[in-house]
Amino acid sequence: VSPSIQSIDVRDVRFPLKGGAGSDAIHRDPVYSYAVTQLHSDAALDGIGLSFTLGAGNELVCQAIQALAKPLEHRSIEELMAGFGTVFHQIAEHPQLRWLGPHKGVVHLALASITNACFDLWAKSRGLPLWKLLLDLKPEQILALLDLSYLEDVLTARQAADLLAGEQGGRAARENILRRGYSAYDTSVGWFPYDDQKVKESVSRAIQEGFRAFKLKVGSPDKEHDLRRAFMLRDVVGPDMPIMLDANQQWSLPQAVRTGLDLAPMSPYWIEEPTHPDDVSAHQALARTLAPVRLAIGEHVPNRVVFKNFLESQAASVLQVDCTRVGGVSEFLTISLLARKFGVPVAPHAGDMGQIHQHLVLFNHIALGHPDIVLEYIPHLKDHFVYPANVTGGFYRTPEIPGASCDLK
Amino acid sequence: VSPSIQSIDVRDVRFPLKGGAGSDAIHRDPVYSYAVTQLHSDAALDGIGLSFTLGAGNELVCQAIQALAKPLEHRSIEELMAGFGTVFHQIAEHPQLRWLGPHKGVVHLALASITNACFDLWAKSRGLPLWKLLLDLKPEQILALLDLSYLEDVLTARQAADLLAGEQGGRAARENILRRGYSAYDTSVGWFPYDDQKVKESVSRAIQEGFRAFKLKVGSPDKEHDLRRAFMLRDVVGPDMPIMLDANQQWSLPQAVRTGLDLAPMSPYWIEEPTHPDDVSAHQALARTLAPVRLAIGEHVPNRVVFKNFLESQAASVLQVDCTRVGGVSEFLTISLLARKFGVPVAPHAGDMGQIHQHLVLFNHIALGHPDIVLEYIPHLKDHFVYPANVTGGFYRTPEIPGASCDLK
Repeated sequence: VSPSIQSIDVRDVRFPLKGGAGSDAIHRDPVYSYAVTQLHSDAALDGIGLSFTLGAGNELVCQAIQALAKPLEHRSIEELMAGFGTVFHQIAEHPQLRWLGPHKGVVHLALASITNACFDLWAKSRGLPLWKLLLDLKPEQILALLDLSYLEDVLTARQAADLLAGEQGGRAARENILRRGYSAYDTSVGWFPYDDQKVKESVSRAIQEGFRAFKLKVGSPDKEHDLRRAFMLRDVVGPDMPIMLDANQQWSLPQAVRTGLDLAPMSPYWIEEPTHPDDVSAHQALARTLAPVRLAIGEHVPNRVVFKNFLESQAASVLQVDCTRVGGVSEFLTISLLARKFGVPVAPHAGDMGQIHQHLVLFNHIALGHPDIVLEYIPHLKDHFVYPANVTGGFYRTPEIPGASCDLK
Repeated sequence: VSPSIQSIDVRDVRFPLKGGAGSDAIHRDPVYSYAVTQLHSDAALDGIGLSFTLGAGNELVCQAIQALAKPLEHRSIEELMAGFGTVFHQIAEHPQLRWLGPHKGVVHLALASITNACFDLWAKSRGLPLWKLLLDLKPEQILALLDLSYLEDVLTARQAADLLAGEQGGRAARENILRRGYSAYDTSVGWFPYDDQKVKESVSRAIQEGFRAFKLKVGSPDKEHDLRRAFMLRDVVGPDMPIMLDANQQWSLPQAVRTGLDLAPMSPYWIEEPTHPDDVSAHQALARTLAPVRLAIGEHVPNRVVFKNFLESQAASVLQVDCTRVGGVSEFLTISLLARKFGVPVAPHAGDMGQIHQHLVLFNHIALGHPDIVLEYIPHLKDHFVYPANVTGGFYRTPEIPGASCDLK
């Protein structure tokens, strides 16, 4: 018997960070926070969903969840998930709350949390880790989870089904990744306020732990500061290990061009969020100027429609879609399909600290044929999760616990 | 002596509408609502600012105002407005709340209300209607009101100053508009649920009242319904009067192409919001296909950066920026400057029922050289304003009361 949702609670949980962790050029005092949807079922199982914020305003997302989640009450989880694309669409198109977006900001963050809770409950009720549940679904069942509206010009339901079917052949080989685990990079060696000594120590420790790829924050008002740190890190790790540079939207386009050209000789793996995340045309111009250096974008891209615009404009070479910003697992899958169609890899931003995304990147690789690129490893909230992601030797070890790994202590 | 802001109140006011007024293809049960910022000054003057929503969620905007408006407390209004661009930037870049946007959704609607209250208090304290206050400012004083960040690639402060200076010559002639008033169109003859008889009666009455331009809602699931109504209205008003068709984002791009081509023979003045408001590339493709039929967009475009993308892509021929959605009067002026640079007219969406925009279109015409195109007339909340816009004979009569005309009863 499928569990039924009996009641819905919303929790506002906030975790202050220490010593400048989490800080970047734009977000200088983050308090990592979750707007948590809890779906209580009659099977003594709770579906837990997360959306991520930086503290202030988390309460607004919680209130929006309360307003939007009502249609889930007293629904059977199997019945809900058999047509979740329609449920998603109805919530996203709420005739009054839609005005606050559409499909962005507080209401869309709320939808992310609600959606993620549904997927978590579904996986728990089937006794499967989310990645396994998703891999077991037939193409038409995957499609029923998605809202492809406003994508008709580039991805019809038929095209999406064909894409899923076309990747069936290579699945068996790609399942090898389950044994080794998905590649991680260490996002915590080079936060914005860390001094050189701390960066060096952090990266040395990370290398000892098995990491082979690292993130460094840039976007200083002093360009020379960025350049010095970036070349220093390249010296420390040598010529081969990937270094991701992240400007967190700090630059104007002219600044991004100047600084990007100066950074290019240290061979960044990508340059992330160089300027305003709504500015597709600026990214397009910058991508052309900096090629072959790649641009990564997505942490602040709100929905599938804006991702479509980035893909159509060839303005981004890596999509960092985050299922705690776009409308949850459902829209993450939609955007991953879209990215696959355009041949662009997905390397999620991990507002969930990788807890949900460790499942989704396995699905993306095995079912969609996306490359095993990298998922960021960000351990700051490890102690707060019941089943924290197990990253060892530079890999996310394949999770085996049923659900989406979102349970908080 | 400049009044000083003593305390800040926020009000959540909602006005249910009757008989299907305000309804369109997407927003089926609107409750016209304002998140109202009230700046109480020591001069017994209140600055009133509005942002507009459709009811549910208005409380979220009110709460965001409360969180974001604190920096205004105990500031002198003249000192504040001498560098309002910096104030605007600081509020928009709040290091935690920015995560909920950036520059979109609930936090940006809140900024709109805050900004509009500052301009209202400033104009009241100088004893001038807002349009007159703005026209009296020197170019560098206008620039000090604006946040041009993220526009550096297309509009530097220097270029904006040159643009303002370059329009000085024609101002005297353009001031003639103050005597006649700015052109209005009637947005209320063809709401989505109105039957043919009601549309015909409404438009006949509007013509008797002096209107010469009308809006009709389209976006029905039944294309034939849209076509019948549009051609019927063309028959009723004859070949010369402008008819604006508004799909309120209802169509996919393929639907918009099909229906737009079928509607073209009734010569719409513009087709408004044909598809998702984030989809610049879809609008670009549609604009090319439907030319010379013009696309109008802006009611749901969140900020100057997205407007820049629409302008650069030639995806819109009319910008419907609304100072109750973008960050208030300040960002409205920024976007109007940007539009002028690209030679694209501004015809605001009137979430304020035209109360503030009646001032801003006069500034746009006289100081920026924008054409006198049309401002929508939407009378549903007339009885709730202390000084409702006076539209007679099809023109907004130039307001003479000090302030931005936002006082609610």
